[in-house]
Amino acid sequence: MRVLITTVPFGTRDNTPLEMLDAAGIDYLINPLNRKLQESELAEMIPDFDCVIAGTEQIGSLALESAPKLKLISRVGIGLDSVDLLEAERRGIQVCYTPEAPAPAVAELTIGLMLSLLRSIQTANMELHRGDWNRYFGRRLENCTVGIIGAGRIGSRVIRHLEGFDVKSVLVSDRNQKKVFHERFNTSLVDKDTIFREADVVSLHLPLTVETRNMITKRNLLSMKHDAIILNTSRGGIINEQDLYDVLKSGHLGGAAVDVFNKEPYEGLLSSIDRCVLTAHMGSMSVDCRVRMEIEATEEVVRLCRGEALKSAVPEEEYDVQRAGL
Amino acid sequence: MRVLITTVPFGTRDNTPLEMLDAAGIDYLINPLNRKLQESELAEMIPDFDCVIAGTEQIGSLALESAPKLKLISRVGIGLDSVDLLEAERRGIQVCYTPEAPAPAVAELTIGLMLSLLRSIQTANMELHRGDWNRYFGRRLENCTVGIIGAGRIGSRVIRHLEGFDVKSVLVSDRNQKKVFHERFNTSLVDKDTIFREADVVSLHLPLTVETRNMITKRNLLSMKHDAIILNTSRGGIINEQDLYDVLKSGHLGGAAVDVFNKEPYEGLLSSIDRCVLTAHMGSMSVDCRVRMEIEATEEVVRLCRGEALKSAVPEEEYDVQRAGL
Repeated sequence: MRVLITTVPFGTRDNTPLEMLDAAGIDYLINPLNRKLQESELAEMIPDFDCVIAGTEQIGSLALESAPKLKLISRVGIGLDSVDLLEAERRGIQVCYTPEAPAPAVAELTIGLMLSLLRSIQTANMELHRGDWNRYFGRRLENCTVGIIGAGRIGSRVIRHLEGFDVKSVLVSDRNQKKVFHERFNTSLVDKDTIFREADVVSLHLPLTVETRNMITKRNLLSMKHDAIILNTSRGGIINEQDLYDVLKSGHLGGAAVDVFNKEPYEGLLSSIDRCVLTAHMGSMSVDCRVRMEIEATEEVVRLCRGEALKSAVPEEEYDVQRAGL
Repeated sequence: MRVLITTVPFGTRDNTPLEMLDAAGIDYLINPLNRKLQESELAEMIPDFDCVIAGTEQIGSLALESAPKLKLISRVGIGLDSVDLLEAERRGIQVCYTPEAPAPAVAELTIGLMLSLLRSIQTANMELHRGDWNRYFGRRLENCTVGIIGAGRIGSRVIRHLEGFDVKSVLVSDRNQKKVFHERFNTSLVDKDTIFREADVVSLHLPLTVETRNMITKRNLLSMKHDAIILNTSRGGIINEQDLYDVLKSGHLGGAAVDVFNKEPYEGLLSSIDRCVLTAHMGSMSVDCRVRMEIEATEEVVRLCRGEALKSAVPEEEYDVQRAGL
């Protein structure tokens, strides 16, 4: 059996996944371009492989048509917007993922970005590295209303991290309106419009779906308080990037933090805005979470090789999401 | 009565302090140079004033000799290393400060800097603002031993903020060895050398005294783990700046965060090191804490004007600290 590993780096911080493949007698190739692949590049690489251990690159009909042997797409991570699940299903290709592993790392990065924006850490740091000393006033979480849009695995961890900060109030918007939150906490379930209108800090923790793509546009951003901040560590495309740029450029909003982009590597206009903190899709990249994701994704490949059942096959509702979008 | 306000900005975010002075019929001048004063500049400005509402500028015998009318130094903030308390005492000048107000803002900035360093937020951000996309692996607090040197008003708040993060363990060094910490927490009292040797994150929350000046030198920094990080949001001069630069330059340590410097505005070599996050003495600069500090410092001036007793006169032990240093 031959495995193509497209996600890079892979096995560098902990080579357990590669040892697992070796021990199972599985032949593998790590993406020789050492960056996120275009789908056409993947299509050229994929023909001889039985499995792909995949990152966030697009895997649609173009790639799948070129993959007659493919039996499994094992996603290192949680987002499935990049994989055409229905096309894979038609071709009898199984898809699995690692939904639990990234959450702790994404949640911590979110708090880091939040505090960085609230205190202008990134701006003062860039300026001091250029030799300029400017002191910025900031705000504390105790004086902020924090709005969490999407309180699943990641959003609910963000809420828990906030416990030690006496946040003024936490507003939560989630499709599952029955969610119960920590009682010590001043948490209310509200609709998204209320969050945009009332929160000082808005943080997105949503999957990318037909419903959420471009969900946040100029209208929402302009309805936010003048000095509010917005963070997206979930998926590129949920906030319309051009709208975010236009709104920040116009002087509205205290700042934004963006870890995920429509097209990665990101080369867009947000780079010109100092009060926009940018990170390079690093949400899941704590060593422990990344290693766990790589191991879990590799375990599925080994299970397939041994004829065992997968443990984290993508559930039917994810297929339903894509079906609803067509 | 005439008051010189040296700390800037002052009364800009909330003009209550200026209104208080006006209401009390107190004449004031805000530092016209609009930056931290050299002592010689202060000496030129000070002769006609009865009170100084002071920042962190040096107030020693040079300034006090030129201040025959001075009755009160009201520090906006907590650190007293800049004020020659003994010289003030000899001249019958009272000194008061605002010891409680800055703590919440400093503690939150500290957590922000910690997460920024652990996840390389500042490096990825600087690079993306230059158009370079580099993804960095980071660490989570759950996998870190955090060492807190000094667990007073600020250090103990930092510990509380860490509660929501399941930190692996918290090591605390404090002169008061009887301190009791939150029981839910895996907190141990140890000596400083143990912290340097065992912690992944070392954070300083100490006053600047004869004992703590240059307390942390190359020897301590080199005894830290290769990828550990160190944060100083307390007082410039506690870590020897040249030693920190040399150690970082040599490749040792995962990074450092410095908010306070020997000489401010800072113009030194640490600016050349990307994994050194630099902020411009912004620890206490959340709007709420700064306003509280300004109001409390102004209230003392109004009390003096009305012949009332001061509420936050600097306690005798702070004089003892300076006496011990002579």
